Amino acid sequence: MQSKSFPTAVITLTTDFGAADTYVASMKGVILSINPKANIIDVTHEIGAWDIAEAARVLEDFYCYFPKSTIHIAVIDPGVGSDRRPLAIEADDHFFVGPDNGIFWPIIQRNPKARVYHLTNSSYFLKDLSSTFHGRDIFAPVAGHLSMGVSLSTMGVTIFDPLSLVLKKAVILNNEIKGQVIKIDHFGNIITNIKKEDLMSFLKEGDIPFIEIGNLTVKKISNTYSDVPLNAPATLIGSSGYLEIAANMGRACDMTGLSKDSLIGATCRLRKIC
Amino acid sequence: MQSKSFPTAVITLTTDFGAADTYVASMKGVILSINPKANIIDVTHEIGAWDIAEAARVLEDFYCYFPKSTIHIAVIDPGVGSDRRPLAIEADDHFFVGPDNGIFWPIIQRNPKARVYHLTNSSYFLKDLSSTFHGRDIFAPVAGHLSMGVSLSTMGVTIFDPLSLVLKKAVILNNEIKGQVIKIDHFGNIITNIKKEDLMSFLKEGDIPFIEIGNLTVKKISNTYSDVPLNAPATLIGSSGYLEIAANMGRACDMTGLSKDSLIGATCRLRKIC
Amino acid sequence: MQSKSFPTAVITLTTDFGAADTYVASMKGVILSINPKANIIDVTHEIGAWDIAEAARVLEDFYCYFPKSTIHIAVIDPGVGSDRRPLAIEADDHFFVGPDNGIFWPIIQRNPKARVYHLTNSSYFLKDLSSTFHGRDIFAPVAGHLSMGVSLSTMGVTIFDPLSLVLKKAVILNNEIKGQVIKIDHFGNIITNIKKEDLMSFLKEGDIPFIEIGNLTVKKISNTYSDVPLNAPATLIGSSGYLEIAANMGRACDMTGLSKDSLIGATCRLRKIC
Repeated sequence: MQSKSFPTAVITLTTDFGAADTYVASMKGVILSINPKANIIDVTHEIGAWDIAEAARVLEDFYCYFPKSTIHIAVIDPGVGSDRRPLAIEADDHFFVGPDNGIFWPIIQRNPKARVYHLTNSSYFLKDLSSTFHGRDIFAPVAGHLSMGVSLSTMGVTIFDPLSLVLKKAVILNNEIKGQVIKIDHFGNIITNIKKEDLMSFLKEGDIPFIEIGNLTVKKISNTYSDVPLNAPATLIGSSGYLEIAANMGRACDMTGLSKDSLIGATCRLRKIC
Repeated sequence: MQSKSFPTAVITLTTDFGAADTYVASMKGVILSINPKANIIDVTHEIGAWDIAEAARVLEDFYCYFPKSTIHIAVIDPGVGSDRRPLAIEADDHFFVGPDNGIFWPIIQRNPKARVYHLTNSSYFLKDLSSTFHGRDIFAPVAGHLSMGVSLSTMGVTIFDPLSLVLKKAVILNNEIKGQVIKIDHFGNIITNIKKEDLMSFLKEGDIPFIEIGNLTVKKISNTYSDVPLNAPATLIGSSGYLEIAANMGRACDMTGLSKDSLIGATCRLRKIC
Repeated sequence: MQSKSFPTAVITLTTDFGAADTYVASMKGVILSINPKANIIDVTHEIGAWDIAEAARVLEDFYCYFPKSTIHIAVIDPGVGSDRRPLAIEADDHFFVGPDNGIFWPIIQRNPKARVYHLTNSSYFLKDLSSTFHGRDIFAPVAGHLSMGVSLSTMGVTIFDPLSLVLKKAVILNNEIKGQVIKIDHFGNIITNIKKEDLMSFLKEGDIPFIEIGNLTVKKISNTYSDVPLNAPATLIGSSGYLEIAANMGRACDMTGLSKDSLIGATCRLRKIC
């Protein structure tokens, strides 16, 4: 089974497939059939079903922590089997493989030198192509071959019109930043789309901030969770660089008076008293 | 820590252990203690507790996507510690390791050249054998040693009477195929035991099909999900080659009037108007 | 991408992060950026949020099944960003990396030769240190460098006062062992803190045992699940060496009259008739 010729390669998987079915395993089998030394890392399979925006945010969030040349497969693919194009992208010395539906748009946007390929060379796909599972039949084998050194220009053709995606951004007004909740994490922390940089330029030394989501108001920016009393809410800059409302060993999402569903997309208002 | 002598080997795990406990990790530790270069892949740990039929279907479904010589461990083991035999099987150039309770029967059946071994050589088991966790104490170490090149004939003796298993199959009548629902996947897609080949030979050009499950009737075979309007049901051949009732970005399982529990095993009727 | 100089290393992860967010993936990316050949094994990410006692028990339970020199990262870290110290420990030829809050105390206690290091050398941390995610910023890179051969004495200084932790232990009285339920596993098995050794010395040949939890009484110690009728409760020594009340293909936890929440910590009484 051993071979000197299989390069070490890190391949990550981001899908909306869940962990119970065999979809993810089939993809891994296809990759390992091409490169048995691939080091395959599950990012998450719990992206909301068909939630392109969530996947786009997730990809932008984690990829930079992986080594250069990592191949990131993302399969959130409501258009599978239609004429939506299969893509591979080289950006920021990383590779991305998945459907052309906007999931890679934030990465393309922030990397002007990104090269986008339409995967057209079916000799790098599985032979029996299904019309409902291109994760297994196209994206996994392409990633496997890419990890073996096959170039993207061999597997596809450059395109310049990948599908774009509009993600809501926080708006900075004169005396207010108006953002949205983009995620509730496993701990019940509420993560917004208000960036650290925006917060920094908005708040001056001595300003008293007011952060409001639903019924919850917090009047301080803390450094970490344990800066506030047990179970009290804390507003801080989360580990991804966004304003986050958490609680010290408690669930901030239960303190807003909003259901978890209505929290996603809810307004987060940051005001100040100078 | 490095050694040139550990071969690259892919080992998959299929269990009903869930992801929260340490059972799976203990098995991985045992494998890696024997071969630290083993590339261990979780297929699923969400098989229904003690559900031998589900495990049998899952194994048959995914194994062929893995490279030749992959070692597939499956531990759904209600009879652990009794006189049920521990097995290892060589079939279709793959290896399978687990209890003798029928989970491997479909693979044995479709591979007449399969060789089945009763694992009798306890020198390849963990020293302190528990009576409740042979996944860790027998199957993991046997898989580890197998990946290191120890032959099955060294670890066991050939047998010819592995336990069989009866899985319900679709029945093809004159003007009807009567199948059963075998799975609801993460997307709410309803997967039946009606095979692509049966569908193909049943429906002739121009026939109008009627697919019925509970209250849901679909009158067309589609190519992919997005061939039908948003949230409408679509009948198609799923990626594993079985008739599937899905919905375009919706949950087909919620359209039948049946609860998820009563859907499993429910009748799926395929008729036609010629 | 290939390099001969990366050693094979097994690194395990135990956290309370859940599987849906990108926290775990970011840690893996950081590790693989330092050592792309690291074989990273998820133990569990389903430790109860901030549950130090559960994490301590889990670590003690699984680590010994892994090969010598394995690096075990554990991040249950309510004090992240405060003055709680980041630690690395060498004990029993294994390495442990995580916060100084008691999670490693059982391992330190049972290994008198354990050496405990306060990680003080920030040149082995990520450059931009967040105050809320030291799993990614401190523990992952330290584990990565450790796997590359950097010594703990280079990354930190020896300390002798790691935080201790009190875990409830079973009490052996004259005619009774009084223990507690410490875990309900995926199968509904009830695992107590009564050790096999205590049971062995308490029960003599011919004694009739009485095991009581809530409304449930069992009057026998069985060898394995299938020794009792289908769905009947069975008391046995579980695979981790603790007294366990299970059921033959049933959920023992539903037979006690106690809710799952009130079961954790509930009294388990073992008496005998001589």
